[in-house]
Amino acid sequence: MKSIVIINGPNLNLLGKREPNIYGNQSFDDYLSSLPTLYPNVHFEYFQSNHEGDLIDKLHAVGFSVDGIILNAGAYTHTSIALADAIKAISSPVVEVHISNVHARENFRRQSFLSPVCKGVICGFGLHSYTLAIAALINE
Amino acid sequence: MKSIVIINGPNLNLLGKREPNIYGNQSFDDYLSSLPTLYPNVHFEYFQSNHEGDLIDKLHAVGFSVDGIILNAGAYTHTSIALADAIKAISSPVVEVHISNVHARENFRRQSFLSPVCKGVICGFGLHSYTLAIAALINE
Amino acid sequence: MKSIVIINGPNLNLLGKREPNIYGNQSFDDYLSSLPTLYPNVHFEYFQSNHEGDLIDKLHAVGFSVDGIILNAGAYTHTSIALADAIKAISSPVVEVHISNVHARENFRRQSFLSPVCKGVICGFGLHSYTLAIAALINE
Amino acid sequence: MKSIVIINGPNLNLLGKREPNIYGNQSFDDYLSSLPTLYPNVHFEYFQSNHEGDLIDKLHAVGFSVDGIILNAGAYTHTSIALADAIKAISSPVVEVHISNVHARENFRRQSFLSPVCKGVICGFGLHSYTLAIAALINE
Amino acid sequence: MKSIVIINGPNLNLLGKREPNIYGNQSFDDYLSSLPTLYPNVHFEYFQSNHEGDLIDKLHAVGFSVDGIILNAGAYTHTSIALADAIKAISSPVVEVHISNVHARENFRRQSFLSPVCKGVICGFGLHSYTLAIAALINE
Amino acid sequence: MKSIVIINGPNLNLLGKREPNIYGNQSFDDYLSSLPTLYPNVHFEYFQSNHEGDLIDKLHAVGFSVDGIILNAGAYTHTSIALADAIKAISSPVVEVHISNVHARENFRRQSFLSPVCKGVICGFGLHSYTLAIAALINE
Amino acid sequence: MKSIVIINGPNLNLLGKREPNIYGNQSFDDYLSSLPTLYPNVHFEYFQSNHEGDLIDKLHAVGFSVDGIILNAGAYTHTSIALADAIKAISSPVVEVHISNVHARENFRRQSFLSPVCKGVICGFGLHSYTLAIAALINE
Amino acid sequence: MKSIVIINGPNLNLLGKREPNIYGNQSFDDYLSSLPTLYPNVHFEYFQSNHEGDLIDKLHAVGFSVDGIILNAGAYTHTSIALADAIKAISSPVVEVHISNVHARENFRRQSFLSPVCKGVICGFGLHSYTLAIAALINE
Amino acid sequence: MKSIVIINGPNLNLLGKREPNIYGNQSFDDYLSSLPTLYPNVHFEYFQSNHEGDLIDKLHAVGFSVDGIILNAGAYTHTSIALADAIKAISSPVVEVHISNVHARENFRRQSFLSPVCKGVICGFGLHSYTLAIAALINE
Amino acid sequence: MKSIVIINGPNLNLLGKREPNIYGNQSFDDYLSSLPTLYPNVHFEYFQSNHEGDLIDKLHAVGFSVDGIILNAGAYTHTSIALADAIKAISSPVVEVHISNVHARENFRRQSFLSPVCKGVICGFGLHSYTLAIAALINE
Amino acid sequence: MKSIVIINGPNLNLLGKREPNIYGNQSFDDYLSSLPTLYPNVHFEYFQSNHEGDLIDKLHAVGFSVDGIILNAGAYTHTSIALADAIKAISSPVVEVHISNVHARENFRRQSFLSPVCKGVICGFGLHSYTLAIAALINE
Amino acid sequence: MKSIVIINGPNLNLLGKREPNIYGNQSFDDYLSSLPTLYPNVHFEYFQSNHEGDLIDKLHAVGFSVDGIILNAGAYTHTSIALADAIKAISSPVVEVHISNVHARENFRRQSFLSPVCKGVICGFGLHSYTLAIAALINE
Repeated sequence: MKSIVIINGPNLNLLGKREPNIYGNQSFDDYLSSLPTLYPNVHFEYFQSNHEGDLIDKLHAVGFSVDGIILNAGAYTHTSIALADAIKAISSPVVEVHISNVHARENFRRQSFLSPVCKGVICGFGLHSYTLAIAALINE
Repeated sequence: MKSIVIINGPNLNLLGKREPNIYGNQSFDDYLSSLPTLYPNVHFEYFQSNHEGDLIDKLHAVGFSVDGIILNAGAYTHTSIALADAIKAISSPVVEVHISNVHARENFRRQSFLSPVCKGVICGFGLHSYTLAIAALINE
Repeated sequence: MKSIVIINGPNLNLLGKREPNIYGNQSFDDYLSSLPTLYPNVHFEYFQSNHEGDLIDKLHAVGFSVDGIILNAGAYTHTSIALADAIKAISSPVVEVHISNVHARENFRRQSFLSPVCKGVICGFGLHSYTLAIAALINE
Repeated sequence: MKSIVIINGPNLNLLGKREPNIYGNQSFDDYLSSLPTLYPNVHFEYFQSNHEGDLIDKLHAVGFSVDGIILNAGAYTHTSIALADAIKAISSPVVEVHISNVHARENFRRQSFLSPVCKGVICGFGLHSYTLAIAALINE
Repeated sequence: MKSIVIINGPNLNLLGKREPNIYGNQSFDDYLSSLPTLYPNVHFEYFQSNHEGDLIDKLHAVGFSVDGIILNAGAYTHTSIALADAIKAISSPVVEVHISNVHARENFRRQSFLSPVCKGVICGFGLHSYTLAIAALINE
Repeated sequence: MKSIVIINGPNLNLLGKREPNIYGNQSFDDYLSSLPTLYPNVHFEYFQSNHEGDLIDKLHAVGFSVDGIILNAGAYTHTSIALADAIKAISSPVVEVHISNVHARENFRRQSFLSPVCKGVICGFGLHSYTLAIAALINE
Repeated sequence: MKSIVIINGPNLNLLGKREPNIYGNQSFDDYLSSLPTLYPNVHFEYFQSNHEGDLIDKLHAVGFSVDGIILNAGAYTHTSIALADAIKAISSPVVEVHISNVHARENFRRQSFLSPVCKGVICGFGLHSYTLAIAALINE
Repeated sequence: MKSIVIINGPNLNLLGKREPNIYGNQSFDDYLSSLPTLYPNVHFEYFQSNHEGDLIDKLHAVGFSVDGIILNAGAYTHTSIALADAIKAISSPVVEVHISNVHARENFRRQSFLSPVCKGVICGFGLHSYTLAIAALINE
Repeated sequence: MKSIVIINGPNLNLLGKREPNIYGNQSFDDYLSSLPTLYPNVHFEYFQSNHEGDLIDKLHAVGFSVDGIILNAGAYTHTSIALADAIKAISSPVVEVHISNVHARENFRRQSFLSPVCKGVICGFGLHSYTLAIAALINE
Repeated sequence: MKSIVIINGPNLNLLGKREPNIYGNQSFDDYLSSLPTLYPNVHFEYFQSNHEGDLIDKLHAVGFSVDGIILNAGAYTHTSIALADAIKAISSPVVEVHISNVHARENFRRQSFLSPVCKGVICGFGLHSYTLAIAALINE
Repeated sequence: MKSIVIINGPNLNLLGKREPNIYGNQSFDDYLSSLPTLYPNVHFEYFQSNHEGDLIDKLHAVGFSVDGIILNAGAYTHTSIALADAIKAISSPVVEVHISNVHARENFRRQSFLSPVCKGVICGFGLHSYTLAIAALINE
Repeated sequence: MKSIVIINGPNLNLLGKREPNIYGNQSFDDYLSSLPTLYPNVHFEYFQSNHEGDLIDKLHAVGFSVDGIILNAGAYTHTSIALADAIKAISSPVVEVHISNVHARENFRRQSFLSPVCKGVICGFGLHSYTLAIAALINE
């Protein structure tokens, strides 16, 4: 049994409702509910917050015990050194994911403080980006 | 009856107490208490927080139903892509205001991540900046 | 009786005719003709030129006697230090206005040599930006 | 019968007299006088000014009726957003020309505010650059 | 039956032999030979070249007919606008992959001309990055 | 009796556990418990949070009454203008400290928004940096 | 009899097929076949390659004997110092052409390593850009 | 008998009235009237305009016949390539002067497009800067 | 008995005489004479020079034998790679000190070539900065 | 018997013919033919190509067996990360040489992607640069 | 009787011998010997050194007593913050002079650390620049 | 008999003692003592100083008479325009050498003010860099 925590950052609570041309119109809850059947041997935990500090607290809380973390830090990806420090401080591997192809959007979305301290990065595949991250962590 | 939410960001709770040569010495409460008489047909709500996440949460909570939002995000104006994403994600128009003329101060106050996603920007008129923003939203 | 001078810079003579998706299709004359009724206690003067030097000359001519100046310097906003020096040299307060939200357009429109020497800045509200500037100057 | 306006900017009145190693020693009048014979079906108008505002005024005056404009804005090419806005505001196609190869000279001559809003750009062929621009406009 | 082409760029022919601390010591041939069994319903084609022009030629040759392309353009990722243009010119979706986490290495490896025109990007998972890209393309 | 508040920012709760080669392996609690004996005439208060907003709230709460504040804002040092504004808004002197020599690490750690508004800066001496800051504040 | 070589760079083999909104939908072969009738006194040679090295080889091969070269180096325009060196090394005049107005597209297309070493530059007139280049070379 | 033309640019008509802490409170007319007595062998001509085009026109008009030109182009110093081109185009030597020490003010006043094409530069000595320029030109 | 060398760089010989609003009006000699009583177990040596080379020579002379060096390199802090190389070349720990808070002054004073190769940095506490540095070195 | 491979990049096939004021007028063949007599104990191989991919292929082919490689990559020096990766991937030491002093020419020739991964760099001595590189490799 | 000290920096001892096309071929001694006759009421002292520290020492030695200092700091103008600090630290006015027009040469000669702290700047008039500086100081 | 002067700059007196992993552990004296035997027809002079001014003085003293100068200016390479001016001012050819491959170290070591004015540059070969420079100068 593997344990994987999915952490979503700011504005991702609005998924399905927010700019559907970029983020699609499936809600994250729908996506989450499909996972247990597909991965019976993985224990999933989900956490979302719009607060940078909450994301850091959560990384600290789970980052020394779970098998992997999937992190979509939303806009904090581009501005938060504190989150990057949290990732470096913990021992569980973290995979950075993005729903959209951040490189095809505004220039400031191409800078990530998190990428250099994550295991790897996956972006551009819609919610399937999370599925690929799960596959990546199971393969570890 | 129109509904307008005024949202103030970090350090604006100290108004009247903080650097009075820049921000004046009237407290925001005094200003707020003058509004209902002046605008009997507008319902005002006020929210202040020093937490970036709180500001995002508030924008999400009111941003799909009120007629307009007046946002003085304080220093987060210059650093928060997450706030900008929240503004883009909601449907109510947002007017960016500043008490001081931010362009006459430090260089870093001239960059705003919020301006491109707001309806318009008003700065430099003291607390009267908020009054002008109300006029702008009533005119929508 | 207050005196306010509205000064428009290059290409604003084409208002209503030029790029209507950005600047709207109301001509400035129509807007001007509505002001005397709305502000019976204000004397308005209007001036437009495509010449940077004309704008400076006008600022010199009125800037030591009128109660306020509303300046939409068009593209000279982004390139003219001479205009900024003229604003600093006179004594009447100047409010910078823009019809469009300049921050939502090309990057070079986000730099203003004028903002640091103006009283305040208002942009993004169409021709209503001028109305807000009048309100700001009356409130001085 | 096609109508083409040739507009020359600052210092181009000195052609034939100014830095002949760069600009050649033929005057522009000599060149102009050769055009009617070569293009009997084109009506040419010529305008030169050292004033940025004059160039804008001229673009406004002819830019909604003539078949094409050939613009050598001289040094204003590199500094004038107001001219670029004028070109965007009118409906006649504008071809940017330069006598010298501006890319083989000082670095600041490689930046053009006008190129992105012109139909096309031709530079480096001496006065023949204008002839090529005429051919381009006739071909429209 | 789906068709997927894997294209590797410069120096990737040395995989297993080159800087094993970064790129691992498995050769790409070993990896390739494992694919047919794992994906019986996918037809794989493999192409490697150290020549930028060869990579463009190959993209042109297959890019209007196959179901997906996995491209690890090696160092050309960071310097080739021509490759990016080729990706834009074709119709098959392209997934950009990297064996190492390019964001954890030299700064110049963080710039990719290709990412904005690819479907998505996967990096940092060793040769498993290719496997994830296959999963992404199958999911299309 | 002097009052000094020590405020630690993000990830400093992991001290002793996080990257010991950079931050040492003493926990901050151990360090704190040694202070009362060494400074019998100083009243110490300690506060740690991973939330930028909490740090601002704390600065507001104590910053008008205590004799000095020692602030290690962790990664927020490099990104938070809001914290800098809070320091400017209060009246107690603030000393910026860092455990490691931030100048010997990544380039982005060399930029501090806080330094220009603090009384002084001390970095590179491990937990002894705090002791030197206490000495600095006692000497005020 | 004059001899002119037309050299096209990467992705221009796809003309008529690739991004027709930018490059039009006429193939280059169609265009080429029209030239002999129009210019009976010019001998044309055509060469296209996606390989930077091939373009250099061709410039070397013809650049000491033909009367002129028309070069559309595609994306290599923006990245290849080697091509620029080749142009400087040969004696035939080279005219740089572009089908689209490169200045109205991505910023990186505004930098050309080739322009400073070419005779002149023509861009934005579709395939007619080549025709103008022929006129320019005949006029030499 | 030597002939020297003094040309003043934008806002210098306000001398004595404008920002006296920077520019002093002597008017330029007073200064001018003192010159004929001091330099009986020099014929002085004075010209001031707020129009960039006027300054260029004047340089053209006198720049092929007078013995020297003293140019204080005010803010156009920092933005006008057209003025620089005019200076290069004429044959009379031009001395750039400034009343204030432009290097001790805003950063943008340290860039001069004119300096590289002038004979020399004198700044910081109040109206005496013009006197030194006269001495420099007499010495030619 | 510990040995500590205090090295002061350019213009620090004028302490007490130079810009007293920034550097205070106590001379360094007065400060020095107070040290032996306060630190009876430390042997102090003092050296000041305005010559970059002298500072390097001194670092070489003492840097392989003394217990610690306190270096206020004045303006050479911001420009001298040679001094940084000297610090790296020796074995005694070096503490960088500044009297003023260099981060609250001109931007160029925020860059230090020395900080990355020193043990730590202390600035902003007037002459007490040296006292803190002594405490830091005694604690080594 | 030592084995040394000399690899020349783009445009170096034109040596003696191309810009003789920079590159001299001796052909490389003449130079090569002089080497066997001078270095009887060295086996030389020579390779030139204008194709970046060919240079990489050659480095791969010889870079695991020969005693040293002398590489003049011409303009690819300044643009090719792929070549740098190839040098890092092989085991033979590579010496970067240039005929001219690249630092005394255009600014873009001062950036070399290859220098950091080569053994050393020699430039400015004409064809004698190669002779010095031979001496350097023999001395290894 | 006024006292003026002329201080020359590095390489100015070679005047008349060094790059005569830039610096002329008169030696500085010849120039100096002409001064006493021309200015009988001024006491001149001359100092030259190639050592930055010597120049600082000299400024300290004379800068609290003489009536004016003429400083040509040569290349240290562009690199020495220590010299700038010395000028700020003393009380005598300093005039910065240059023999050549530094703005017409390499870009790095256009940056001066000294200009903002000097009284004024004179450049481009050969040795006559010093004469103008004398006139400026006598006029103080 | 040829005369060659070897000049070493700051910190090179510590060779063999300083950072041996970068600079090796042979002292420069040992290296020097080997030269007379190897080059019986060359007269060598050696000079080392940590003072920028001393290096300039030495270049002046020998630079008009000796056959060549080998200069390792250490860190002054990256910061001294004064040294570059000295090299330009003299007539003997100067070869810039470095023991380490400066391009494989910190970024600031890749900028050399000296390279553009030297005959050529040799770096990365340990003390053998000097031997190659001797060979280069003998070959002049």
